[in-house]
Amino acid sequence: MPTQTATQSGCRLTTDLLARFRTVRAATLAFTAPLTPEDLMVQSCPEASPVKWHLAHTSWFFETFVLADYLPGYTPYHPDFHWLFNSYYTSLGDMPAKKLRASFSRPPLDQILAYRAHVDAAIATLLSGEAEAEDEVLRRISLGLEHEQQHLELIATDIKHALFTNPLHPAYLEASAKPWSLIPNLCTFTTFEGGLTEIGLTLDPSDPNAFAFDNETPRHKVYLQPFALANRLVTVADYLAFIDDNGYTRPELWLSEGWSTMRAEGWQAPLYWRRDSATTSGWSVYTLHGFQPLESLLATPVCHLSFFEADAFARWSGMRLPTEFEWEHAALTATTAPRNMLESDTLHPTPAPASEGLQQLFGDVWEWTSSGYTGYPGYRPLPGALGEYNGKFMSSQVILRGGSCVTPATHIRPTYRNFFTPATRWQFSGLRLAKDIM
Amino acid sequence: MPTQTATQSGCRLTTDLLARFRTVRAATLAFTAPLTPEDLMVQSCPEASPVKWHLAHTSWFFETFVLADYLPGYTPYHPDFHWLFNSYYTSLGDMPAKKLRASFSRPPLDQILAYRAHVDAAIATLLSGEAEAEDEVLRRISLGLEHEQQHLELIATDIKHALFTNPLHPAYLEASAKPWSLIPNLCTFTTFEGGLTEIGLTLDPSDPNAFAFDNETPRHKVYLQPFALANRLVTVADYLAFIDDNGYTRPELWLSEGWSTMRAEGWQAPLYWRRDSATTSGWSVYTLHGFQPLESLLATPVCHLSFFEADAFARWSGMRLPTEFEWEHAALTATTAPRNMLESDTLHPTPAPASEGLQQLFGDVWEWTSSGYTGYPGYRPLPGALGEYNGKFMSSQVILRGGSCVTPATHIRPTYRNFFTPATRWQFSGLRLAKDIM
Amino acid sequence: MPTQTATQSGCRLTTDLLARFRTVRAATLAFTAPLTPEDLMVQSCPEASPVKWHLAHTSWFFETFVLADYLPGYTPYHPDFHWLFNSYYTSLGDMPAKKLRASFSRPPLDQILAYRAHVDAAIATLLSGEAEAEDEVLRRISLGLEHEQQHLELIATDIKHALFTNPLHPAYLEASAKPWSLIPNLCTFTTFEGGLTEIGLTLDPSDPNAFAFDNETPRHKVYLQPFALANRLVTVADYLAFIDDNGYTRPELWLSEGWSTMRAEGWQAPLYWRRDSATTSGWSVYTLHGFQPLESLLATPVCHLSFFEADAFARWSGMRLPTEFEWEHAALTATTAPRNMLESDTLHPTPAPASEGLQQLFGDVWEWTSSGYTGYPGYRPLPGALGEYNGKFMSSQVILRGGSCVTPATHIRPTYRNFFTPATRWQFSGLRLAKDIM
Amino acid sequence: MPTQTATQSGCRLTTDLLARFRTVRAATLAFTAPLTPEDLMVQSCPEASPVKWHLAHTSWFFETFVLADYLPGYTPYHPDFHWLFNSYYTSLGDMPAKKLRASFSRPPLDQILAYRAHVDAAIATLLSGEAEAEDEVLRRISLGLEHEQQHLELIATDIKHALFTNPLHPAYLEASAKPWSLIPNLCTFTTFEGGLTEIGLTLDPSDPNAFAFDNETPRHKVYLQPFALANRLVTVADYLAFIDDNGYTRPELWLSEGWSTMRAEGWQAPLYWRRDSATTSGWSVYTLHGFQPLESLLATPVCHLSFFEADAFARWSGMRLPTEFEWEHAALTATTAPRNMLESDTLHPTPAPASEGLQQLFGDVWEWTSSGYTGYPGYRPLPGALGEYNGKFMSSQVILRGGSCVTPATHIRPTYRNFFTPATRWQFSGLRLAKDIM
Repeated sequence: MPTQTATQSGCRLTTDLLARFRTVRAATLAFTAPLTPEDLMVQSCPEASPVKWHLAHTSWFFETFVLADYLPGYTPYHPDFHWLFNSYYTSLGDMPAKKLRASFSRPPLDQILAYRAHVDAAIATLLSGEAEAEDEVLRRISLGLEHEQQHLELIATDIKHALFTNPLHPAYLEASAKPWSLIPNLCTFTTFEGGLTEIGLTLDPSDPNAFAFDNETPRHKVYLQPFALANRLVTVADYLAFIDDNGYTRPELWLSEGWSTMRAEGWQAPLYWRRDSATTSGWSVYTLHGFQPLESLLATPVCHLSFFEADAFARWSGMRLPTEFEWEHAALTATTAPRNMLESDTLHPTPAPASEGLQQLFGDVWEWTSSGYTGYPGYRPLPGALGEYNGKFMSSQVILRGGSCVTPATHIRPTYRNFFTPATRWQFSGLRLAKDIM
Repeated sequence: MPTQTATQSGCRLTTDLLARFRTVRAATLAFTAPLTPEDLMVQSCPEASPVKWHLAHTSWFFETFVLADYLPGYTPYHPDFHWLFNSYYTSLGDMPAKKLRASFSRPPLDQILAYRAHVDAAIATLLSGEAEAEDEVLRRISLGLEHEQQHLELIATDIKHALFTNPLHPAYLEASAKPWSLIPNLCTFTTFEGGLTEIGLTLDPSDPNAFAFDNETPRHKVYLQPFALANRLVTVADYLAFIDDNGYTRPELWLSEGWSTMRAEGWQAPLYWRRDSATTSGWSVYTLHGFQPLESLLATPVCHLSFFEADAFARWSGMRLPTEFEWEHAALTATTAPRNMLESDTLHPTPAPASEGLQQLFGDVWEWTSSGYTGYPGYRPLPGALGEYNGKFMSSQVILRGGSCVTPATHIRPTYRNFFTPATRWQFSGLRLAKDIM
Repeated sequence: MPTQTATQSGCRLTTDLLARFRTVRAATLAFTAPLTPEDLMVQSCPEASPVKWHLAHTSWFFETFVLADYLPGYTPYHPDFHWLFNSYYTSLGDMPAKKLRASFSRPPLDQILAYRAHVDAAIATLLSGEAEAEDEVLRRISLGLEHEQQHLELIATDIKHALFTNPLHPAYLEASAKPWSLIPNLCTFTTFEGGLTEIGLTLDPSDPNAFAFDNETPRHKVYLQPFALANRLVTVADYLAFIDDNGYTRPELWLSEGWSTMRAEGWQAPLYWRRDSATTSGWSVYTLHGFQPLESLLATPVCHLSFFEADAFARWSGMRLPTEFEWEHAALTATTAPRNMLESDTLHPTPAPASEGLQQLFGDVWEWTSSGYTGYPGYRPLPGALGEYNGKFMSSQVILRGGSCVTPATHIRPTYRNFFTPATRWQFSGLRLAKDIM
Repeated sequence: MPTQTATQSGCRLTTDLLARFRTVRAATLAFTAPLTPEDLMVQSCPEASPVKWHLAHTSWFFETFVLADYLPGYTPYHPDFHWLFNSYYTSLGDMPAKKLRASFSRPPLDQILAYRAHVDAAIATLLSGEAEAEDEVLRRISLGLEHEQQHLELIATDIKHALFTNPLHPAYLEASAKPWSLIPNLCTFTTFEGGLTEIGLTLDPSDPNAFAFDNETPRHKVYLQPFALANRLVTVADYLAFIDDNGYTRPELWLSEGWSTMRAEGWQAPLYWRRDSATTSGWSVYTLHGFQPLESLLATPVCHLSFFEADAFARWSGMRLPTEFEWEHAALTATTAPRNMLESDTLHPTPAPASEGLQQLFGDVWEWTSSGYTGYPGYRPLPGALGEYNGKFMSSQVILRGGSCVTPATHIRPTYRNFFTPATRWQFSGLRLAKDIM
């Protein structure tokens, strides 16, 4: 079994880190290019934040955790920003309620952009010093860049919901021609014999360029029963069969909490689907390219499912969701296939290639697992306020793996653990089937 | 007793009406000058709408009720705007939910302003024709202008709440020096002997320039017992004494619904007051000029009270609120004093002048009455969709009279009936005391 | 015009009052005879209380407002009952939250009945003294008896809801044969010319036997426009035509608040109606005699309507609800027809007799008016804690007049003002049509 | 390592099973002896049901899953009971909403008791036949008895909440003298070296007397890191130190969801604690024996904690909660100490004995673990409607282990998995500390 290293996102030298900093920060701004200042103000669901807030908060992160501590003589851009753009770090003091973020017409966008430039310049100063920066500086900047990439993904996710909520349903970008097949591949399976395996990472403390989130650590042994994983993601065509087989009206297919949530919310299909008599399939699907007839998406992975829907679909299929350990174990053995991620500019999941073996493990859609989000044995949060980054969310959330079509490609790892509450649908989330091998 | 006529806002000639149209429409835009496109997006409480929406909806009103019906060959500006900017006229079809208005980043502000210009040009065409316009056209344009003025007042009200909700609490405009006294006048009373009086208006159907809302009609007899009205509004100093006498913790002073609302909402003072140890009074008050120390406002009328608070204050004073009929009866006999209204540019209620007789009947703050909002005897809503303007709100609302410091001066009349639910505080609302004469 | 006196319920002598006390108290217990101790525990909606609580609270009223103040040496039955059975008199101290009343399994029913007996004996002692009781004692006992009768009506109302909520829908009593016609009378109207009239009562302070609630006082002049009132109540057949004409899906028929309430609650018919394919009408109606086919009730007054439904029905009819002043003015001129009230033992509204003139003014159903609940000019609440009886509810409520089939006959008067919030349906509430006379 | 067998509750012979049936059913009724029919009606929180409902539902379980299928000619007691007392088995059809159970004044208690007797007699007939009953009959009766014991525990839990909610706070039984020490033992730890272990059970399909819930199966391998477990439960004294160290106001000690839940609910101590200036500790604690001064309970295990509070306490202690696998692994090695369970009649957790090694693993309080509730590898729910017993609740719930002082002694096993949502406090739930061994 290949071993997993944690160095994808690391940089050997300070100058490499500065280059990466500039690339990552520029990518965030580049994504907002098609949007107006007014678009950046919208907060259309409790999970989302205005894009403008994301632009400020990611800068706040560098200012708070890097510049304030490590750049001698650093002057914060604005005295109020310390609390104004704090997201959830209670040990740093109070912060505005999340639902108020849509009221941040002031500071205006120009000031937010100036804030970003101020922070960028200070990081450049810090990394351009003659002396090598301390290891902890490199670690924190690396963390800030992963944080920035998470928020870039959130920007894509949130603006999709914002534009969809607009009664006119404008597209983020006009659609280009879709080169993909309309006919899904057959779904085949790869078998794993299980046994003792190792999961997660333990970072080398002497290597400041190694990076992983604290929740991926430490590396530890897990025993797996034999299992099989589907070679591709569940498609729109697959899911349509579930809907047409009355999947949304049969309680025996659902977890109890899923059934009551689904009925209370009135779900009858994934988020972003709507009935549309003008299409041959009777459905349209809102994408970042605007509404598309569902028939053009049959071979693409189904997307914007809650855990409850993914679980019900798997039960209807006579199978189940994988555990996060099965997924990670399989991901380590997979070849590096082409990945449909943010840089592919598809902005939507695409059909699996007609290849052998496990496909689509990375990109396309986040894959719901059956695993609750808890700390690994021996888990320790980062010290200080950064300890609030991940650890305090370890209840009532479910693990997703593999990244999506709006995840930056350098952001994902086999050990990467994403997590959301089981009713979450605004993410690009789907599933891959698993089954036991007796 | 002087008779009340309904001609203040009417115009004798079509050209006069066009001039008035231009003046009123320009006033709306002028008010938004200090605001950014981002400010115009904020919707900070369920009562409020984004300013941008107000700008579009008032144009929609002219397009829907005037141009579509009366300008031959009129082309609507945009096919979606008919439903997009409908507020609550169900007989015209569906409309977006009110809470979604903050998602209207598209159409962008530029397009909204172009929409206004398009409508303005069409109205000018309609009123510049050689032939006199039909009476119904003049009536509907007059209605549209009153509607525009109502929304101008709402813009002032809503942006105050929006800027206050912003954690930085920016001012709409910087404060200028306040020329007013800090010492309130003594509160004296004017006595009325009562008897049969006439309330409301009946419009002359042959005069298209006469205007009143349908809910002010028809004129009818009401019998009044003897009563007295305070010559000035209740001041901040008066209200502070109520608070200091534990007004907010004594249930015997409150209506039952007021007590439970106040406790559920956690009210301890009027909206926009906050404890502030940096002031000598211990309070600051948010105004459109930013936070002001309460001690500088002692002689000004107390503002942003719910009906429940106004009622509790009156009970604590051993008096009561006036009925809307007492108020109207008194207002007809009052001299035309200087009025602190929108054009005064104070943007806040100001102290009563040291004059004899009833002061502050018009402007400063809307005065809560004890009267529920119902139709007058013989009341008929306007025909068609315009019948939804007022009549369908005649339940669970309380009448306010007299206009406020953000009401346009030409918009108010002695017969004018405003109405809100009794828990409403975001309006510039206060009170005047009344008492029985035995 | 006949004058209205307030002496129906008064008693000339102390011994008369004691006899009346015994009659009224016994009626309450008699009504509970068909119920089990478990039935008396149920609290099935926020408006309702368990019957057991009513039995205790009415005793508490006499103990608190009569015995504690006026019977020398009186020992309260139990030290905790003073706060335990307080309903809403905040000036007497804290009380348990209303929603907790269903948790009062202790004290057990036996103890509640012993409490009633204890109070009854003490009142008998008080009224059997050689000396005449003070006037205030007589007044308070009279008030306590009116209070008892109100709660007897509430017991009937609440147990109907409780038994209906039980999934088995048991009857309070088995149905007896219904002697009534299935064909409603034609609806004719009586015209009133209006003018100045007098409304309400002013009690003679020297007559302790005169009784009226404080909210019926003082007598005062009101000016009425000409109007007409329907001679009978709106029937089930009338209302069915409204439903069949899509009354519940046409927003133009409804107040805005009524429309949103009706849709949020999912109302499609009056409370207690359900679709039933086993009946010829397609509906069954739950009554205190169990479910009845709606076709057997066509001529009976429609019942368990909210104000919003009554108002929408009136608008659909091209008419309106009467004001409470119109109703009272008409009621004073009406002959004393047979009344279907609690003592009739019908427990349901019955068809109007085929007589001339106004019928069904008293009994059958409470009649929604268009009048909000406010104090009359010069209104003064009773002094002390008793001032909380009526006055503190004067907001967001609508007046109903005339009593229902579960109101005790001696409890009603032409001046009697009942009041509930406009969405209330668990009362026996219906309507009578009114119209303007031009 | 000793192996775990599943035969504690099994019976070798049909006659043994009948004896056990009678014992278990009688225990349920015996527990209700101190309660009145009115007490049995109360439903004081959404988690709880009226005791009366429990008495009926447990009988329904035997009728539905045993008698209807396996006793030829069995006549159901009442045709409505099939749906009336269904709890959550959607595949058997509709059922009343849980919140309506407090409205079940009918059927009356007498009828519920007759229902129990009817079912008991039929089970006796079934088990007294000359032929041996089928294996599946024995399995289902065993399941029904475990179900009955779960509901007996729920009765104790629910009636505690019901009596506490009563404003008079009556005791279930008067308190007897407490023989226990006031001084908690020192808290020591037992170390486990970890490695591959086996968890859960696989039932022998040929042995109908073996019993385990489906969620305890199948037996499977789990790898454990070295760990240590506290030898006793966390005590009231321990928890008081957490409170006194501002445990409820320090966000860094809490999961994010725990912090927001705790503040929204206003928790400042475990459920059933209240401030009481009449005690030396300043607190009283409600128990099934009524309120007790907290100082008399210092050495007893803290009880009625949510998972969030247990987790925060562990973090404050510098330790953590055990996983359910650590707990089970440790429980298999523990000696059979005296157990404080329902039959001990303490009705409250008691201090740990001063012995060596792990104490209090069974009884006293359910112990929160850090494990989410999911199916074991290869988990299969029971076929048919019984598959809804456990499997459909596998989301957003946390595992508790070991039973409590109101769990019947024969009901618990080392492999037994209880589960509740993390905010649950009405259970007798506490914690044991765990820590990593490096």
